[in-house]
Amino acid sequence: MKTTGSTSGWRNKLHEIIYEADTPAGKFFDVALLFVIVLSIILVMLESIPHVNERYYWQFYTAEWIITIIFSIEYFLRIIAINKPFRYIFSFYGIVDLLSTIPTYLAFLGGGHNLLFAVRSLRLLRVFRILKITRYIGESNKLLRALRDSKAKILVFLFAVFVLCIIMGTVMYLVEGPENGYTSIPIGIYWCIVTLTTVGFGDIHPVTPLGQFIASIIMITGYGIIAVPTGIVSAEYSRSMGGSKPIPTNTQVCRYCNETKHLDKAEFCHNCGNKLNE
Amino acid sequence: MKTTGSTSGWRNKLHEIIYEADTPAGKFFDVALLFVIVLSIILVMLESIPHVNERYYWQFYTAEWIITIIFSIEYFLRIIAINKPFRYIFSFYGIVDLLSTIPTYLAFLGGGHNLLFAVRSLRLLRVFRILKITRYIGESNKLLRALRDSKAKILVFLFAVFVLCIIMGTVMYLVEGPENGYTSIPIGIYWCIVTLTTVGFGDIHPVTPLGQFIASIIMITGYGIIAVPTGIVSAEYSRSMGGSKPIPTNTQVCRYCNETKHLDKAEFCHNCGNKLNE
Amino acid sequence: MKTTGSTSGWRNKLHEIIYEADTPAGKFFDVALLFVIVLSIILVMLESIPHVNERYYWQFYTAEWIITIIFSIEYFLRIIAINKPFRYIFSFYGIVDLLSTIPTYLAFLGGGHNLLFAVRSLRLLRVFRILKITRYIGESNKLLRALRDSKAKILVFLFAVFVLCIIMGTVMYLVEGPENGYTSIPIGIYWCIVTLTTVGFGDIHPVTPLGQFIASIIMITGYGIIAVPTGIVSAEYSRSMGGSKPIPTNTQVCRYCNETKHLDKAEFCHNCGNKLNE
Amino acid sequence: MKTTGSTSGWRNKLHEIIYEADTPAGKFFDVALLFVIVLSIILVMLESIPHVNERYYWQFYTAEWIITIIFSIEYFLRIIAINKPFRYIFSFYGIVDLLSTIPTYLAFLGGGHNLLFAVRSLRLLRVFRILKITRYIGESNKLLRALRDSKAKILVFLFAVFVLCIIMGTVMYLVEGPENGYTSIPIGIYWCIVTLTTVGFGDIHPVTPLGQFIASIIMITGYGIIAVPTGIVSAEYSRSMGGSKPIPTNTQVCRYCNETKHLDKAEFCHNCGNKLNE
Repeated sequence: MKTTGSTSGWRNKLHEIIYEADTPAGKFFDVALLFVIVLSIILVMLESIPHVNERYYWQFYTAEWIITIIFSIEYFLRIIAINKPFRYIFSFYGIVDLLSTIPTYLAFLGGGHNLLFAVRSLRLLRVFRILKITRYIGESNKLLRALRDSKAKILVFLFAVFVLCIIMGTVMYLVEGPENGYTSIPIGIYWCIVTLTTVGFGDIHPVTPLGQFIASIIMITGYGIIAVPTGIVSAEYSRSMGGSKPIPTNTQVCRYCNETKHLDKAEFCHNCGNKLNE
Repeated sequence: MKTTGSTSGWRNKLHEIIYEADTPAGKFFDVALLFVIVLSIILVMLESIPHVNERYYWQFYTAEWIITIIFSIEYFLRIIAINKPFRYIFSFYGIVDLLSTIPTYLAFLGGGHNLLFAVRSLRLLRVFRILKITRYIGESNKLLRALRDSKAKILVFLFAVFVLCIIMGTVMYLVEGPENGYTSIPIGIYWCIVTLTTVGFGDIHPVTPLGQFIASIIMITGYGIIAVPTGIVSAEYSRSMGGSKPIPTNTQVCRYCNETKHLDKAEFCHNCGNKLNE
Repeated sequence: MKTTGSTSGWRNKLHEIIYEADTPAGKFFDVALLFVIVLSIILVMLESIPHVNERYYWQFYTAEWIITIIFSIEYFLRIIAINKPFRYIFSFYGIVDLLSTIPTYLAFLGGGHNLLFAVRSLRLLRVFRILKITRYIGESNKLLRALRDSKAKILVFLFAVFVLCIIMGTVMYLVEGPENGYTSIPIGIYWCIVTLTTVGFGDIHPVTPLGQFIASIIMITGYGIIAVPTGIVSAEYSRSMGGSKPIPTNTQVCRYCNETKHLDKAEFCHNCGNKLNE
Repeated sequence: MKTTGSTSGWRNKLHEIIYEADTPAGKFFDVALLFVIVLSIILVMLESIPHVNERYYWQFYTAEWIITIIFSIEYFLRIIAINKPFRYIFSFYGIVDLLSTIPTYLAFLGGGHNLLFAVRSLRLLRVFRILKITRYIGESNKLLRALRDSKAKILVFLFAVFVLCIIMGTVMYLVEGPENGYTSIPIGIYWCIVTLTTVGFGDIHPVTPLGQFIASIIMITGYGIIAVPTGIVSAEYSRSMGGSKPIPTNTQVCRYCNETKHLDKAEFCHNCGNKLNE
């Protein structure tokens, strides 16, 4: 299934630049985009500091519009560079890309300020896609695989921790009571999570001798069981490191079906059978 | 040893639905029960928040009675579905099931409010039994085995931590004294546990230079020895993962002796010799 | 080298009861002593709570004297039961045993109250000797061996952490300054240790944006490097677990040279050649 | 390339004393220098405590000059003892050595006090060079190698943690708002780092129920993912501890003596001398 000559010429080129990182142009595009994304995040942060925002309001406003327009153009180019645009639009990164541009337009139309702030900080997620240019892709795939392999065990562990926190949080609520800051069972559970994870803010802390005794037991328990997830990941990771499956480090993306993770020497997409890199 | 036909018919069926999770009806029963348990726990939590309880007092009261009656019926069915009911009644889950229903009746008779709260939150323990429907049972068995195998080592470790806390807590009591919040040796020990486990509430903290110096040593020690339980579990877990013993994932329960952990292909109970799943 | 008959009769018996835990009498002696030690520690703790001490002053005073006399008799018996008493007197436990009895006598003569408190809490160290009766001795020996094997690595690691704390503590002192609680470089170092070990009391915390930025880096660093000691102990422990050296679990003690760690079937002391258990 | 006799005599000797630690004189030089460095660091610390500095101002001033002159002489000797002085001057330690002497001269000329303080504490870095005299150098090399091998993985992990902190910090800023201490997004991110790393100062903490709920999730996440760097280092370290032995992957088997584990390029059996692969 070949596309006609002239059109496929610039569309292929565009696809290679935007979606891949094998050519100098593709690498430059990714680095430039990374720079704009990081800049946009720093702007969102600075904008949130009251006295900075007051002073540089117009500069922020202008910069925000420039960045939004850049992202809009990029989003548009991504759609036309691919053969099956809907697969991109409804993919995880397609939605994140759209959400990166919308808030500024909505704010212009008078949308809710706070929610738009949160959505704008989602732009950071785009950084993960661009990281494909680095040599870290193999490492992060290994990490993700180790995490995925031990997901069930970690969920079981976290569930047990959660049940323990509910029971001990209730006990602490009964022992310490509202007069010592444990105003309800959910607060007791919150305190128990703060303690068991060894965070320990200190906003609420036991005051009665019995409460301090129970807290001591909770803390020593937390100290003892922190070993469990570590042991799991450690063992899984050791095993996955010994594994013989090759870790995908290729950055080619099929422009027909948006499929990634092709082998380094792949000539055709393993998903739809179309040719890669024509 | 076969039971007579007609009776065993519905009792067998009931047993399969309530105690096992192999049939669609058994799975549905478990999911429904899980839903009721989680709901009852959320109600207990919300009830503990003063302004929520004041506003929805009657709704909570009604919901509590409905849940109690559901649990009572379930408890009754569990007793009649099994051939040796006393084994169930005095088993761990049998007692938890009974404790799940009693508080509401006692509160009706005018029992102590606080203790009943604590007992009601024990309902959450029932969740663990129902988890047999999930594919997580194999994982949690592996985890429990790794923990059980390293129990002696972790106890030795926690005992050494505890002795260290008693000695350092006494030293801190002498160095800082009551004027800096270390009002007694037990308070010093409590502070030392808070510090060594890296929780660090900050309700009590050293003020004198010598106290801060000793605290620094305790903290660095705690940082160094947190590695010990992790190393233990990690090593044990790696070993248990390599082990060839099959992990039990079967959910059959003998209706004569309440025995669990049968092999997948077991036809007869390995404990009492009666037939499974007639 | 045999000792004469009649004397060696009761001395041998005494030695077996006090120093070993193979006979019923020896086990009883150890359990009774464990009980008295724990009791004496609880008394020391309670005595430190002002309002408890005021109320039960004479009860504490009497109990303290009774315990001191028991410990004194035990110390005396330990000396006469052994053939070379000086080896015992100047051993670690010999000194701890002596220090367990002295404070009460000194307090009677009018010694410093505070120091005696600290010395009395050293009694707890005696518990470790008595633990030989438990089956945990093998486990604790394994743990100690893993710790000893990785001692050099953990010291190198802790030294690097300490140097990092000195440098970052100085930086924080300069960035935050005395007006934000960082009154001197030692205080900055103390704060840095509190932060890097993830304890985080909150008595001192960064206030300036730059200080908070540096603190963030310190915290993420601490989070990253906590893995190092864990990895070390974990690897060492795995290795030591795989080792084939037998772990000593025998409780026999030679009454000529006080040597421990004999093989289970040893008839003669491997250190001085005298017969064990005549 | 030999230097002329008499000069090379004392220069060789000087080089051996200053740069090496094999001879008694070299060891003595290193220990003496270690002593002066530690002393100078303690002086810097004490000087930063206001009331100590006021009282002993002149003693500190004199001691600082004596130490600076010693370091200056040492720096000069290091330059003349080496054949290619520029390699030393522009090496890491050469710059540290220079920075150790400059602050006092600058202070004499009236330089900024604070910056000089920071620079003076850099002297501590010199301690690492002197540690070559200890037997810990092998251990620290092993540690450094394990860290270097897992650098890419730890960076990927820390980057993911950082992105998570930016997103969750923004969410907390929106949920809690300036009235609860979350005055800007950077403050929210700072709080999120404090929480995720389980430090938990408590200077800022969630107050609203929703904020506490999100905080609970962040804390449990932090508790779960602390396992990742630990697992990485642990696995890398286990591998690096296995040393430099090549992993046998050769499948040749001598057909005369049945010996396996030949090198890849072996032509003859290393056991019986017969030719392989005839």
